[in-house]
Amino acid sequence: MDLDFSKLGGLITAVIQDHASGRVLMVGFMNEEAFRKTVETGYATFYSRSRNKLWLKGETSGHRLVVKEISTDCDKDALLVSVEALGPGVCHEGYQSCFFRTLREGQWVENQARTYDPAEVYR
Amino acid sequence: MDLDFSKLGGLITAVIQDHASGRVLMVGFMNEEAFRKTVETGYATFYSRSRNKLWLKGETSGHRLVVKEISTDCDKDALLVSVEALGPGVCHEGYQSCFFRTLREGQWVENQARTYDPAEVYR
Repeated sequence: MDLDFSKLGGLITAVIQDHASGRVLMVGFMNEEAFRKTVETGYATFYSRSRNKLWLKGETSGHRLVVKEISTDCDKDALLVSVEALGPGVCHEGYQSCFFRTLREGQWVENQARTYDPAEVYR
Repeated sequence: MDLDFSKLGGLITAVIQDHASGRVLMVGFMNEEAFRKTVETGYATFYSRSRNKLWLKGETSGHRLVVKEISTDCDKDALLVSVEALGPGVCHEGYQSCFFRTLREGQWVENQARTYDPAEVYR
């Protein structure tokens, strides 16, 4: 399972996609340990660049990502992880997808409604 | 159009997704200039980390990516670019998507057939 972790200082990009809808939910980073945990446990695990530690997605919110399939790209420096997302949303700001802003005439405009109240989940 | 280019040394991650099928085609990186060119020209333009220069996707192959929509995530450090891909494939190895290998029992296994012969395109 040789992946190239060298280009981003020990990390690879992981694109998280909903297995049923095809919606891209978020982008995270994994180091080798996070990748191994993801494969072993079946739950998407990232490396948090801000907290400098492993981060089991959903450890606080319960909104875990159940791995359905993992693919890698030609350079083996990126992953595409197909998931079933538990809970109403992946984004810590209360949206189903982190990509909740779309460019319209030079402005970032909200493209979806909130699916939960983050204040109720993260306290 | 304030984006956060600081986390990856002047770059942000750009996930390229087929606007019709929802298939994730590739992951690239953009610096501020590549992002501006992408918006201005309507063709996905990246920053090549290996060649250290702007890279209009398809400049050699003709397989350009026509931008349909650009979204950004909660942290504004990643882009989701919805495209119409011109030509038979995005991957320089001859596949429709760069994510042509899927993990099966600890091995990366090809998940799609080649759609063109790269030797005919890149010479």
